[in-house]
Amino acid sequence: MTYSKVKYEGLKKLCHIVFEKFGFNREDSKTITDVLLLSDLYGTESHGVQRLIKYYNEIKQGLIIVNSNPQIISETPISAVIDGKAGMGQLIGKKAMNIAIKKAKTSGIGMVSVRNSNHYGIAGYYAKMAEKEGLMGISMTNSPAVTVPTFGKEAMLGTNPIAISIPAEPYPFLMDMATSVVTRGKIEVYNKKKEPLPLGLALNKDGEDTTDPYDIIYNVPKKLGGGLLPLGGSKELTGGHKGYGFALAVEIFTAILSGGDTGNYVHLDGKGGSGTCHFLCAVDYGMFGDKKSIEKRLSRYLSELRNSKKAKGAVRIYTHGEKEVESYNDKIKNGIPINDATLNEIGNICKFFHINSSNYIIKVKS
Amino acid sequence: MTYSKVKYEGLKKLCHIVFEKFGFNREDSKTITDVLLLSDLYGTESHGVQRLIKYYNEIKQGLIIVNSNPQIISETPISAVIDGKAGMGQLIGKKAMNIAIKKAKTSGIGMVSVRNSNHYGIAGYYAKMAEKEGLMGISMTNSPAVTVPTFGKEAMLGTNPIAISIPAEPYPFLMDMATSVVTRGKIEVYNKKKEPLPLGLALNKDGEDTTDPYDIIYNVPKKLGGGLLPLGGSKELTGGHKGYGFALAVEIFTAILSGGDTGNYVHLDGKGGSGTCHFLCAVDYGMFGDKKSIEKRLSRYLSELRNSKKAKGAVRIYTHGEKEVESYNDKIKNGIPINDATLNEIGNICKFFHINSSNYIIKVKS
Repeated sequence: MTYSKVKYEGLKKLCHIVFEKFGFNREDSKTITDVLLLSDLYGTESHGVQRLIKYYNEIKQGLIIVNSNPQIISETPISAVIDGKAGMGQLIGKKAMNIAIKKAKTSGIGMVSVRNSNHYGIAGYYAKMAEKEGLMGISMTNSPAVTVPTFGKEAMLGTNPIAISIPAEPYPFLMDMATSVVTRGKIEVYNKKKEPLPLGLALNKDGEDTTDPYDIIYNVPKKLGGGLLPLGGSKELTGGHKGYGFALAVEIFTAILSGGDTGNYVHLDGKGGSGTCHFLCAVDYGMFGDKKSIEKRLSRYLSELRNSKKAKGAVRIYTHGEKEVESYNDKIKNGIPINDATLNEIGNICKFFHINSSNYIIKVKS
Repeated sequence: MTYSKVKYEGLKKLCHIVFEKFGFNREDSKTITDVLLLSDLYGTESHGVQRLIKYYNEIKQGLIIVNSNPQIISETPISAVIDGKAGMGQLIGKKAMNIAIKKAKTSGIGMVSVRNSNHYGIAGYYAKMAEKEGLMGISMTNSPAVTVPTFGKEAMLGTNPIAISIPAEPYPFLMDMATSVVTRGKIEVYNKKKEPLPLGLALNKDGEDTTDPYDIIYNVPKKLGGGLLPLGGSKELTGGHKGYGFALAVEIFTAILSGGDTGNYVHLDGKGGSGTCHFLCAVDYGMFGDKKSIEKRLSRYLSELRNSKKAKGAVRIYTHGEKEVESYNDKIKNGIPINDATLNEIGNICKFFHINSSNYIIKVKS
């Protein structure tokens, strides 16, 4: 795969127009674009603009309903349950986190469990929404089952990311990670590059270690068996049951609390929603003490971690959120790398909607 | 090491007496015993009665203060910060979770961050307290630094377990796991058995993979370098940064929010407390819908996981909390296995306090 760097501003304007063509109003188009491109800016290509074609197909198919009206099913001063009504995940996720933030500001915490939504992009976007408001943000989502339980060979859990963000200087803490060893997107990259998988990431349909990306990409959606391993791998010795536990906890917060579909029922075809479930939470940590002091203590500890002694051969110790800030600054300035296949897909969408893509896709000379 | 099975009831009575000899009142002695022996009943030897001698030494040394009076520093209807005043971890943990449970029952959630405590035993005990009251329980603790950050060789984080429990049939969900690949206790077992460590668990003082338990047991407390790897191992490819992130999140909830010591400052010598920090949370999930329906949905999903297809060679798929229930029932009936070294230590303590241990240590014939 070859990559071209394109200017962020042009790509953003193009996405606004494309999502309007998909049927969203201006404001919603901006929201969806914002979530999508933050992923590219953070360096997570899999959840960025390369998904444009997937979202388009899911809208055409009727899996994502453009003008859905997500509904609050029940509510307390510190919680809510939302039925996403099969709408666009990013719009539902943002709405849910905004409710959580509002509740946190008045009641100290807001916890919103969401059912019947669709893919909402990077979990970290919503955790970051709370962080920007001076709160702790927590964001989780399930997804179509692709991860096996320890000792199993049948995908029963999603990749189920957990994201947590809280203000700190100079880098806000932001962890955002799948509870599987790797994401489905990483497997797709090995497949596109025609490279074998390293051992320890995935199982084939018999539940044996595999190096063939096809075992995941082809077999899992067809429910033929196999799947990604939970964080910690296939053995209890290396803590595979721990990743499995975290993935299960995500199913509880998202699907079990909201009354939605657990990963083994979430689907990617058909009409009227994939059944994806989210959990969005905001915490006003000011209830535990002076906020500035808490932020200072965290900033100091993160700095101690970064400055601790490095292993032989290691260049740098990161804290979570640091790479994202550096990537963001670099890509705003120097452009977002987009691979040729994605550029081609964007070109076709533009042709279909009679958009002159060359007005927006501005390549940066490197 | 050889093991003898001893009857639970006798061991319990003996522990009550011993903790009274240590200076605790009857009620507190019962609480500490309850936490300790639940670990043995669950099959987690490292956090059970084998710690009796360690607690005794820490009390003699003045690290644990027997008659400390933990203090509520600040409080809201949904939160509290407690200063443990260097008391016994089990008493502080129970007090904190009881406060969380009370708040959850009146306000929907209770979150208690604790500083200046000591080792509190198994994290799962406190999560289970909430589960028994029909709530979701969450329990975390930091510990003296033994885990390295990804790319580091200096222990900067505790083993930092996270426990979550919520009612389900026939096995309540209970996950309780260190965010390092394995616990310090597991390394001690390899050491006692004079067996090499499998690769992927720990680093030596230069930050290289090691098979020598001594690298952890001797070097880490002396701050010579090296440590346990976070869940996911040493590489980003296998998700080591994820375990590191979870461990860091535990430091935030326990030490950063409470204003206590992060793992790199928690210590095991000196007087007046190790500086250990906890986080105890109870959630009334009834705010998200009918509690019985939520429990039914969870029970069904857990059963689907247990009944899903097994990998080649695998005998059984577990859900978290299942092994603990089976172990509990077995050990109540057939006795708790205690290794000879521990029995010897208990014997010495009994001699010192003029307790006739043969009245309480009743071996089960196998």
